[in-house]
Amino acid sequence: MTASSPAASTATTAGSALRRLTAELGSAVTVEPAALAAVRSDKSGWQAPGLPCAVVNARSVADVQATLRIATEFRVPVVTRGAGTGLAGGACGTDGSIVLSVAGMDRILEINPDDELAVVEPGVINQHLNDALADYGLWFAPDPASKAISTVGGNIATNAGGLLCAKYGVTREAVLGLTVVLADGSLLRTGHRTVKGVTGYDLTALITGSEGTLGVIVEAVVRARPISSGETVTIGAVFASITAGAAASALITRARLRPAVMELLDPVALALIRDYLGAEATADLPPGGAFLLLQTDGPAARFEAEQALTVLRAAGGDARLESDPVAADRLLAIRRAMHPALASHGTVLIEDICVPRSRMAEMFAVIADISARTGLSIPTVAHAGDGNLHPNFMIPGPSTAADVDVAVPDEIWAAADELFRAALRLGGTLTGEHGVGVLKRRWLADELGETGFDLQRRLKAVFDPLQLLNPGTMFAGPADPRAQ
Amino acid sequence: MTASSPAASTATTAGSALRRLTAELGSAVTVEPAALAAVRSDKSGWQAPGLPCAVVNARSVADVQATLRIATEFRVPVVTRGAGTGLAGGACGTDGSIVLSVAGMDRILEINPDDELAVVEPGVINQHLNDALADYGLWFAPDPASKAISTVGGNIATNAGGLLCAKYGVTREAVLGLTVVLADGSLLRTGHRTVKGVTGYDLTALITGSEGTLGVIVEAVVRARPISSGETVTIGAVFASITAGAAASALITRARLRPAVMELLDPVALALIRDYLGAEATADLPPGGAFLLLQTDGPAARFEAEQALTVLRAAGGDARLESDPVAADRLLAIRRAMHPALASHGTVLIEDICVPRSRMAEMFAVIADISARTGLSIPTVAHAGDGNLHPNFMIPGPSTAADVDVAVPDEIWAAADELFRAALRLGGTLTGEHGVGVLKRRWLADELGETGFDLQRRLKAVFDPLQLLNPGTMFAGPADPRAQ
Repeated sequence: MTASSPAASTATTAGSALRRLTAELGSAVTVEPAALAAVRSDKSGWQAPGLPCAVVNARSVADVQATLRIATEFRVPVVTRGAGTGLAGGACGTDGSIVLSVAGMDRILEINPDDELAVVEPGVINQHLNDALADYGLWFAPDPASKAISTVGGNIATNAGGLLCAKYGVTREAVLGLTVVLADGSLLRTGHRTVKGVTGYDLTALITGSEGTLGVIVEAVVRARPISSGETVTIGAVFASITAGAAASALITRARLRPAVMELLDPVALALIRDYLGAEATADLPPGGAFLLLQTDGPAARFEAEQALTVLRAAGGDARLESDPVAADRLLAIRRAMHPALASHGTVLIEDICVPRSRMAEMFAVIADISARTGLSIPTVAHAGDGNLHPNFMIPGPSTAADVDVAVPDEIWAAADELFRAALRLGGTLTGEHGVGVLKRRWLADELGETGFDLQRRLKAVFDPLQLLNPGTMFAGPADPRAQ
Repeated sequence: MTASSPAASTATTAGSALRRLTAELGSAVTVEPAALAAVRSDKSGWQAPGLPCAVVNARSVADVQATLRIATEFRVPVVTRGAGTGLAGGACGTDGSIVLSVAGMDRILEINPDDELAVVEPGVINQHLNDALADYGLWFAPDPASKAISTVGGNIATNAGGLLCAKYGVTREAVLGLTVVLADGSLLRTGHRTVKGVTGYDLTALITGSEGTLGVIVEAVVRARPISSGETVTIGAVFASITAGAAASALITRARLRPAVMELLDPVALALIRDYLGAEATADLPPGGAFLLLQTDGPAARFEAEQALTVLRAAGGDARLESDPVAADRLLAIRRAMHPALASHGTVLIEDICVPRSRMAEMFAVIADISARTGLSIPTVAHAGDGNLHPNFMIPGPSTAADVDVAVPDEIWAAADELFRAALRLGGTLTGEHGVGVLKRRWLADELGETGFDLQRRLKAVFDPLQLLNPGTMFAGPADPRAQ
């Protein structure tokens, strides 16, 4: 077929790849239209255009190796996917790609209480790992909001954050070693079972947060921490303005206090939460104000909480300390209601910027200004202990469902663009914990600079010379990702 | 000169590079024989054969950029050097290289107490940074034993550890962002001023611990931590054997206690310390036994120390808790005497392996076995909280001095080889905190595996395509590092 058109040749290649996949992996390969459609989107609501050519439900490291060997042979792109709970469009089955699901590789291979580590397959759900560790008085510290449904492999691939990072670190600090299948199907082991080790470059850290663009994580040695002894003490504080709330949270840091949780809700978010929870549950939240939620833990929890209370009151907060679990839970419920309250109004684009803690009040002012100028409502919550803000954009239309393609209107991207640039100007970053994915790709070079962007592309080429691994995530894919 | 010999051509190239360096950098360039000789060695005692062609005492980022531009143009290798306190031969001026000293770039550019960070030049001494941070109730956690004399840039280049890592993390966790001059003289900025951020690959972590082989760190944003409140409580415990001591320290971890310091000394080390300090200061140390030193800190220091005391006594330890600073200092003095005691007998090759904490007793048994079979004395101290052992080999001859070339006898390398292989077999690593340098290069592939070793070489080539940056450290240099 020397005269075949490129399209026909591409279709032939995909067909050949598919035949080989099926021959080698049998029932692990599916081409059911519903299965293909289901992996086009993630929790951001973004959907990849077109349709992947197959989903491989890997059951073993050998399955992953076979998939990548075949993908390399036939030049078919591969999108690795866990639970699909990402918020940046980073694991969505692009047109013609093989979606390699590791969700079924969900075994906990080892828990070693003496060395305070666990060895897991990538598909294990974060909460399941924590349930298993709890028997030993241990926990896995990364706590993204999705922890009940997201996988440890996905947490590692995105270097996930969460509410507890300021005190307990991000995912990177909880990963000791990885086993990774490279683009050609070979197996790479990185890191150690030890808590220290400086032999060679830190590939464990390089692959953590690489969003499926360098290889496929098939096993991880993760660090487990002792569960904190002592009580957890909760504080709720109401401030007259978000500026006052942001300033107060900065004063907590300045006072050298390190609460486990410090969450700040702005007036726009609180108005939606009031509507959602009703007047009784939110009686203490005056209109226009901001709400700061703190939790301290560990052996000095009460002492630290009392110090925090003093700081917050001095900063003008109407603050109270709750030791009673029921009363504390009422405060936590306000924070927990944030996303349900927003989702009840339609689809939500959850943004994710991070600024130095001292600049949070300025960042909130920028958000309020953008909102006033554009007329867009931008309810915002911040992990205030680490300066990580989640401004949310409400997208008109029905709630996100897996089969609804959500188009973010241009005016929202224009506002988001302003947000990102302001965060960079303040010494911050485009994404604190969700990743670049597809949705923030166009701003990547703005943050990295030309030298950094170029270097990162060349590092990717070392791992993935044919640009087959998750093309389109972080970096624009080749014009036709299936072309050689 | 088409018929010139390679040697003449090389000399001409070096001469041209030198003329250009002097023209651009003036008095920053020195070719004084004493200056050239002084940078051939580090604290390991190893000396590079031959002589570097020049030392550049960089005063600014521009000086570093100019040096690397010229080095690239004339294909001259560059060895970056801070205080020269390394223990792996990783910053020694090899024959014909330019030694780029950043020791003079020692300014603290900013301390930001609100964001708990500092911005420093690479040559600032670790202790000087800590002195400056203390005014704000902050500290820089990395605490290598060399902290009074080693630079922050060197700490980052080796991802230095120390006594406090088990509780407070290694250097990597204290580095937020870097400014790096690449081989061609261009400037790369990595990371953020924020505590979170997942934009692109984690080049900050990749460069941390890269031992001068990827670029030259000219500025660092480092994390400062609040100084722990409350007292520090010290425990000393004597055990009948090193096996018992190692088992007891593992039980401390297993009890979910996390002392700030947990140091374990073996009987061979204790015998040397007894000789060095005298009978009175070491009256409590019976021959043949092991000594475990613990310190707890933070608000629950006493509570944790009391729990630890119970664990240690149940494990057969003769343990006592000292709150009195003078009495506590007597216990600390035993640990502090380790290296002076060894050095008083001659030159010491300090080794540095790390094993999972649960395997420490086995590793000590291997060391005792090697010692018994070879007749070599191998006094050993361990950072027992993280399984990091420092077995020491005593090299006959005079004490290390900068102008003495120390040759490690083959029989010591043979014994070290056995040690390294045993550490790997136990799930550990060749080097916990000192780095690969020149001295451990030949074992690197054993730990990384073929796939990992090959990948790491290709990553280096992205940063340093001409193999000019610290050739011979981590990887063997090209046959003639000045050849194109």
